Amino acid sequence: MRMTTHVGLTGRALGAHRMILCGERDDHILSSLRKVAQNWGGDFEAVYERNWQKAIEQFEGLKVHLTMYGLPVKEVIGDIRARVARDDLLIVVGSEKVPGRIYGLVDYNVSISSQPHSEVSSLAIFLDRLHEGRELDLQFAGAKRRIVPMARGKRVEMSGRPNETPGE
Amino acid sequence: MRMTTHVGLTGRALGAHRMILCGERDDHILSSLRKVAQNWGGDFEAVYERNWQKAIEQFEGLKVHLTMYGLPVKEVIGDIRARVARDDLLIVVGSEKVPGRIYGLVDYNVSISSQPHSEVSSLAIFLDRLHEGRELDLQFAGAKRRIVPMARGKRVEMSGRPNETPGE
Repeated sequence: MRMTTHVGLTGRALGAHRMILCGERDDHILSSLRKVAQNWGGDFEAVYERNWQKAIEQFEGLKVHLTMYGLPVKEVIGDIRARVARDDLLIVVGSEKVPGRIYGLVDYNVSISSQPHSEVSSLAIFLDRLHEGRELDLQFAGAKRRIVPMARGKRVEMSGRPNETPGE
Repeated sequence: MRMTTHVGLTGRALGAHRMILCGERDDHILSSLRKVAQNWGGDFEAVYERNWQKAIEQFEGLKVHLTMYGLPVKEVIGDIRARVARDDLLIVVGSEKVPGRIYGLVDYNVSISSQPHSEVSSLAIFLDRLHEGRELDLQFAGAKRRIVPMARGKRVEMSGRPNETPGE
């Protein structure tokens, strides 16, 4: 599965409501994410916007860019959490080549360690810190599948309609 | 960059000393990880072992498998942290298709939420919780490159020489 799909899945699992995919359009990524949301519940949506700059500029709320060059998360997460209590939050993550002007378009450039790792791990730790761990207890309404945690093995409860149409 | 490379980078950035790549050999992944370790310091190494079962069985210490089907991290992280104070730790992550017998070969199957997301995000949150956030302050000995955190823009010190690039 593509890295960008993992970004979307991580966002959804940890409480994001929407992913805006920018740059090159990839309908496979969007449909994978929509399928997960249909099966596992919640209100997450994945949308496409070719122009990343427009997506950032038009967003009304707090804008945070995750980058290894930014300020350490522990120094800014308190301020960000306070603002997110009032405002919507846009988190910007990119792959290795992020255009330099992103740094000036956001309210915070935040680093999750100043070592190279991954936009997926940065997003995960940022959301975990932002929500102080409570996001791991999120319930996803309308789920067709639900996992029952176990010490060993797999248990999935299927609660879909018996005659549901595939892909619906 | 491949997902497996991001797993290795995330492990290294958050305090792991070694990655054992199992299954299909991919020298590009191993060399990417070694190059990062050379440039950014520390003692991380990336090695290959074809037989994943052997890698798990021969490891002496605590073995934790990260899986969406496992017990919630908050329920077990205290016990794991106490054991890691005495023992080495092996963290097993797989891609979508993990052989069922892994569940019986490890001491703990641990979930980072019971939602589908990513082995990269699971590893990141697990290590962040395990080290209680202290891993983000790790210093990497012998680094050729070091980032100076900034509110905007990028600053990388190359073996002591500052090399600043404006973010815009």
